[in-house]
Amino acid sequence: MTDVKGNRAKGPAGQADPDLYLRVVERRNDGVVIRGAKAHQTGAVNSHWMLAMPTVRLTEAERDYAIVAAVPVDAPGLIYVYGRQPGDTRSLEGMIDVGNAGFAGQEALVIFDDVFVPSEGVFLDGEHEFAADLVERFTNYHRRSYVCKSGVGDVLIGAAALIADYNGVPRASHIRDKIVEMSHLNETIFGLGMAASHESFPRPAGNWEPDPLLANSCKLDVTRYPYEIARLAQDLAGGAVVTLPSEQDFAHPEIGPLLDKYFSGRPDISTVDRVRILRLIENMTVGRNAVGYLTESLHGAGSPQAQRIVIERTTDLEAKKRLAARLAGIAEQ
Amino acid sequence: MTDVKGNRAKGPAGQADPDLYLRVVERRNDGVVIRGAKAHQTGAVNSHWMLAMPTVRLTEAERDYAIVAAVPVDAPGLIYVYGRQPGDTRSLEGMIDVGNAGFAGQEALVIFDDVFVPSEGVFLDGEHEFAADLVERFTNYHRRSYVCKSGVGDVLIGAAALIADYNGVPRASHIRDKIVEMSHLNETIFGLGMAASHESFPRPAGNWEPDPLLANSCKLDVTRYPYEIARLAQDLAGGAVVTLPSEQDFAHPEIGPLLDKYFSGRPDISTVDRVRILRLIENMTVGRNAVGYLTESLHGAGSPQAQRIVIERTTDLEAKKRLAARLAGIAEQ
Amino acid sequence: MTDVKGNRAKGPAGQADPDLYLRVVERRNDGVVIRGAKAHQTGAVNSHWMLAMPTVRLTEAERDYAIVAAVPVDAPGLIYVYGRQPGDTRSLEGMIDVGNAGFAGQEALVIFDDVFVPSEGVFLDGEHEFAADLVERFTNYHRRSYVCKSGVGDVLIGAAALIADYNGVPRASHIRDKIVEMSHLNETIFGLGMAASHESFPRPAGNWEPDPLLANSCKLDVTRYPYEIARLAQDLAGGAVVTLPSEQDFAHPEIGPLLDKYFSGRPDISTVDRVRILRLIENMTVGRNAVGYLTESLHGAGSPQAQRIVIERTTDLEAKKRLAARLAGIAEQ
Amino acid sequence: MTDVKGNRAKGPAGQADPDLYLRVVERRNDGVVIRGAKAHQTGAVNSHWMLAMPTVRLTEAERDYAIVAAVPVDAPGLIYVYGRQPGDTRSLEGMIDVGNAGFAGQEALVIFDDVFVPSEGVFLDGEHEFAADLVERFTNYHRRSYVCKSGVGDVLIGAAALIADYNGVPRASHIRDKIVEMSHLNETIFGLGMAASHESFPRPAGNWEPDPLLANSCKLDVTRYPYEIARLAQDLAGGAVVTLPSEQDFAHPEIGPLLDKYFSGRPDISTVDRVRILRLIENMTVGRNAVGYLTESLHGAGSPQAQRIVIERTTDLEAKKRLAARLAGIAEQ
Ligand SMILES: Cc1cc2nc3c(=O)[nH]c(=O)nc-3n(C[C@H](O)[C@H](O)[C@H](O)COP(=O)(O)OP(=O)(O)OC[C@H]3O[C@@H](n4cnc5c(N)ncnc54)[C@H](O)[C@@H]3O)c2cc1C
Ligand SMILES: Cc1cc2nc3c(=O)[nH]c(=O)nc-3n(C[C@H](O)[C@H](O)[C@H](O)COP(=O)(O)OP(=O)(O)OC[C@H]3O[C@@H](n4cnc5c(N)ncnc54)[C@H](O)[C@@H]3O)c2cc1C
Ligand SMILES: Cc1cc2nc3c(=O)[nH]c(=O)nc-3n(C[C@H](O)[C@H](O)[C@H](O)COP(=O)(O)OP(=O)(O)OC[C@H]3O[C@@H](n4cnc5c(N)ncnc54)[C@H](O)[C@@H]3O)c2cc1C
Ligand SMILES: Cc1cc2nc3c(=O)[nH]c(=O)nc-3n(C[C@H](O)[C@H](O)[C@H](O)COP(=O)(O)OP(=O)(O)OC[C@H]3O[C@@H](n4cnc5c(N)ncnc54)[C@H](O)[C@@H]3O)c2cc1C
Repeated sequence: MTDVKGNRAKGPAGQADPDLYLRVVERRNDGVVIRGAKAHQTGAVNSHWMLAMPTVRLTEAERDYAIVAAVPVDAPGLIYVYGRQPGDTRSLEGMIDVGNAGFAGQEALVIFDDVFVPSEGVFLDGEHEFAADLVERFTNYHRRSYVCKSGVGDVLIGAAALIADYNGVPRASHIRDKIVEMSHLNETIFGLGMAASHESFPRPAGNWEPDPLLANSCKLDVTRYPYEIARLAQDLAGGAVVTLPSEQDFAHPEIGPLLDKYFSGRPDISTVDRVRILRLIENMTVGRNAVGYLTESLHGAGSPQAQRIVIERTTDLEAKKRLAARLAGIAEQ
Repeated sequence: MTDVKGNRAKGPAGQADPDLYLRVVERRNDGVVIRGAKAHQTGAVNSHWMLAMPTVRLTEAERDYAIVAAVPVDAPGLIYVYGRQPGDTRSLEGMIDVGNAGFAGQEALVIFDDVFVPSEGVFLDGEHEFAADLVERFTNYHRRSYVCKSGVGDVLIGAAALIADYNGVPRASHIRDKIVEMSHLNETIFGLGMAASHESFPRPAGNWEPDPLLANSCKLDVTRYPYEIARLAQDLAGGAVVTLPSEQDFAHPEIGPLLDKYFSGRPDISTVDRVRILRLIENMTVGRNAVGYLTESLHGAGSPQAQRIVIERTTDLEAKKRLAARLAGIAEQ
Repeated sequence: MTDVKGNRAKGPAGQADPDLYLRVVERRNDGVVIRGAKAHQTGAVNSHWMLAMPTVRLTEAERDYAIVAAVPVDAPGLIYVYGRQPGDTRSLEGMIDVGNAGFAGQEALVIFDDVFVPSEGVFLDGEHEFAADLVERFTNYHRRSYVCKSGVGDVLIGAAALIADYNGVPRASHIRDKIVEMSHLNETIFGLGMAASHESFPRPAGNWEPDPLLANSCKLDVTRYPYEIARLAQDLAGGAVVTLPSEQDFAHPEIGPLLDKYFSGRPDISTVDRVRILRLIENMTVGRNAVGYLTESLHGAGSPQAQRIVIERTTDLEAKKRLAARLAGIAEQ
Repeated sequence: MTDVKGNRAKGPAGQADPDLYLRVVERRNDGVVIRGAKAHQTGAVNSHWMLAMPTVRLTEAERDYAIVAAVPVDAPGLIYVYGRQPGDTRSLEGMIDVGNAGFAGQEALVIFDDVFVPSEGVFLDGEHEFAADLVERFTNYHRRSYVCKSGVGDVLIGAAALIADYNGVPRASHIRDKIVEMSHLNETIFGLGMAASHESFPRPAGNWEPDPLLANSCKLDVTRYPYEIARLAQDLAGGAVVTLPSEQDFAHPEIGPLLDKYFSGRPDISTVDRVRILRLIENMTVGRNAVGYLTESLHGAGSPQAQRIVIERTTDLEAKKRLAARLAGIAEQ
């Protein structure tokens, strides 16, 4: 969905280069040719199909940008440029320093270098007046779906609790209090996601759409709380989360045993397990998976300001004003 | 429910005066005689029946405190001492300075000065081992019910939006942003209440009990966000919220017209309406209804620390640790 | 300083009523006649002289509003209208429920009903181009002086610590942690005030002016932290802070002893002392002195947004951009 | 200073391995032999001398741990194990993706593998009763010195402002407001550092020691605000901060020009400059320099809880209680 957007002060029609939003460059009898690029596409390189749609409200002059199209990921003209992630090259190294050797994600820039889309893959073409609505309806689902970050939060809370165990201080009152705070923030995200669905409403097509006010409130909390949970996890981890030596050093015949000795925590826990959990916390707070847990929480499905705009529009301020006026004894206008 | 509790470092059995928690002082064939006092009873003087129950976990030595009893509010021996509220005497004055001339609440200290309860009104007597469970189940409902504060929040948000209108600056970006923030915080409370019910579970008796983790998270947010919403409402109100002259001054033949002139806002709004809305904001943030909107949000259904204790107990930390251990590559122990 | 301002969307010249900002209505040989009103004047009724000055930047068309004048408080034409405070009538009652029987403040609306100011009391008349500068220089001092709220904070922290003592739980970990947090926030305010003076700079006139960025940062913290300190103080106080019966009930021959019994805390502390400290906390958080500790912290010397505007202007963003560009390897433009 | 500490629930004497705190293992006529390790030593590999001192309060049984010693960094028996940093291998790559090609730091584990220290390098040996005092005095300076993070903050604020420029939206109200917030938080840190020095006091030796309450409050703010500033910087940056392709892709003859086209921002800014500033923000928030700006802000000079303990001890609570008691009308005890 996300166009590269160039100069953010202008819409598609105002850009120096017309390709900075995806657009139709040619209309043929049997389909359209599209050009442009979609940025930050999560999972693009492990998908089968791609669905492109506009990312902003469009004016009449921007009709060519009103395109919704499905293309197989190997359609000619599609170019994928794999994005870098913080600490990405760790994944090439070994099993421990990577933090989470089993799972990671990826984003790609997807360039549509004049891609032909046959008519059956075109769902919208030129009806610019539906773009804003499409974006809003899509984001109602998408922002509600950011409740998924509470699942990632579960992992980080578990990791924080484990390192406190391994350090020998799980019962210290500030440690327990910080875990309570993390859990509270995480459940606040979870609860808002549930509520947005609970309060969903049916569309004529038969689908149920999440309540926009709650879905956007959910996402707005997601732009804040994971950062605080990450900070608290680093607090419980201690400084080693960013200063541990390499797993190659731990494997070194001479240095390894010294590291094993000096990075030990509670005596009944192996040093390597302590290291593993520290590396997981690193991975999730300043490593590859910080992409998914932090920055994507901020920008995915729209930056915080985008949620605020919807919250403003969907808050029924007039109803609230009437309540206040009535209780204040102000006669109806 | 809330006993007066004397020395908070001790339970019922440890108090210098045994009456500081409600207890059975005499058992007769046809009922029990109870003594003690319940503090902060909202709505006590406009109720028909009162239901007394323990407020803490009880030990065997505290069996006499394990009493649940229903009494009509005019049972002999019951004494009500009406509590004061911030700015309470305003209610005796007029119609404007009171802020909200139609509605207010009250709390009372209810003293049980040897009240006889016939057996049919006694639901628990001596089974101390159920006290903790009773308290917890009750608070699962009660804390979830604090979602009601989002309704009060609606009023205050409406009042803040109105005063911004009356001041002429509803479109200023920081004003709009503060209203968005208020709405967001308010919906976060609302959403968590919904979620706690959505995730409720059935008890054998057939009742559905709210999810404790979400209900307590809801209440914990209630101990924070109304204070911030109130601060933002005062921000939008301006200083007049605490410096307005009396309505008697406004009614004064000589001074009144001057006040009408000098406290005007937007020219098409009557000064008295502007004053009314300012008085409502005063009422809700530093007046009588701050009791219900702020302090009760903090302590009602238990002080914040009580929620944290339940959050700690109901967070499934072991499950979260297992997730983290698995992703970190730590072999199962 | 603070004009009543009417429609906040307009400056002095845009008001429906030209008197909504103080202005010169007549110029005589020996002085000027001024008309308008200054709102929220703290201590106005216990001062000897009043110094009026503009409250906003002025245009050329607003020359008549560019007036700085000193007048004795009993100058003919001056009218004082005493402002109400939350819970103000408590001061008429007794010694305990008032919370702080010795000290309180007051604000007044001061109306200049065509007040003559002899020339020697006029320091600025018509030089509109200096108004903005005057306001800014004045607020540099005034906002820095809001460090005074850390002194009020000392009292509230002390009150919170005392009520925890009286309740028997001064050593509970969450109580201690909350007192640490209050102290930390309070010292943050204090420190910024010190720093603003430490970094002050001399003006040609010989006076040293506080650093504007630090002075405004100090004030901006003051618009937030006292509210959080007040919330924490209410937390430690317990619900009685808003539900205690009247001191007349405590003095009642029959009810009094019961209240003395049931509102006791730690057995070695007299109930009346416990009540006194609860009343002081009420007074400072939802009573008369909440005016000085909370709302004045918000609006006094300008609402939060006013500080943000100065912070924006005095932050040397270009210098910071140069640092970033250099480290990022961007060639100088 | 920082020992590796093993089981955090125990002091030096309680560890399974006595070497987990640095200690004297042999006393000779002309000096002592020490064993143990110091973790997270910033700049260890680019220093000339190392000064080792205890990191905790010591009991009599822990006399051998009461050692302060200076050793040249090449003393026999010293082993340095270089710590990894998030995204460290970027430094081996090129000039752009590294984010800040000119500057970075490093931490090392320094193992004292039976290092001999001649008597002239020994400043404390066995006088365990001074350890706590030494730690506290040292941290008064060290925590105050964390004001340095406001300098790093300057860079990140500058970077955030630049990327907003490059994106074309420096004047958007939420952007400006976020920069104001960053600056405000940054100045709050700066101000507290200034204040701690301004309020310093002389020791008999002639040195001036920073005020402990303010120094610790400064550091405690440092454990919070940089994380929020980093979050806001990522907000302004947009998602590209974690999804940009590699500089090798930008240099690629075929793909490079496409990236140059699609990652452009404002048309008058070169894409590579936009990339450079995004990489700097990555570097400071989830890359190598996040070590110094974030995690070190949290743990350096002691974890947050260590500051809270000193704040508790240095807050003069009794004086504050007296103030409150006096105003509440409580007779002196
Ligand atoms: C980037 C960086 C640079 C540094 N540079 C230096 C340096 O140059 N020189 C130097 O000497 N040190 C340095 N430090 C070390 C720093 O002082 C320590 O990180 C800090 O004191 C915390 O110790 P730790 O890392 O062992 O964490 P831990 O002590 O393991 O702390 C982890 C968590 O457990 C808690 N905890 C620990 N023990 C207890 C307990 N007994 N009771 C309750 N809670 C407990 C902590 O509060 C924290 O929340 C640096 C650290 C970092 C991150
Ligand atoms: C307890 C107390 C004591 C005081 N003591 C003194 C004193 O001794 N002397 C003195 O001179 N003053 C005093 N003040 C006044 C203080 O300076 C003002 O309250 C403050 O400047 C705000 O002005 P206002 O109250 O008119 O609020 P308003 O200006 O009406 O502000 C209300 C809200 O509207 C916003 N707003 C207003 N205008 C605009 C605009 N054009 N664009 C965007 N947003 C806008 C504000 O930011 C704020 O959020 C005191 C105030 C208080 C509360
Ligand atoms: C407006 C209002 C309406 C209410 N309505 C009702 C009602 O209708 N019915 C009803 O039954 N109750 C009601 N309550 C009472 C409410 O449940 C109590 O206020 C709450 O449980 C706290 O008890 P407390 O007021 O005695 O405070 P305290 O228990 O004295 O608490 C004060 C502080 O001390 C702490 N503390 C207390 N004991 C300990 C301990 N042992 N260890 C550590 N910390 C401790 C608390 O966490 C808190 O921070 C109401 C309260 C308010 C404010
Ligand atoms: C990890 C990650 C995964 C993602 N996955 C996907 C995906 O799978 N599919 C997909 O389609 N997208 C995805 N996104 C993209 C995401 O939707 C965008 O990052 C988001 O919409 C912000 O756009 P941007 O990155 O271009 O930032 P920008 O739009 O450049 O925003 C940067 C800052 O500028 C502000 N700003 C921008 N324009 C304006 C304006 N006109 N006025 C005022 N302020 C403005 C923003 O509020 C923000 O503060 C992902 C993003 C991330 C970080």
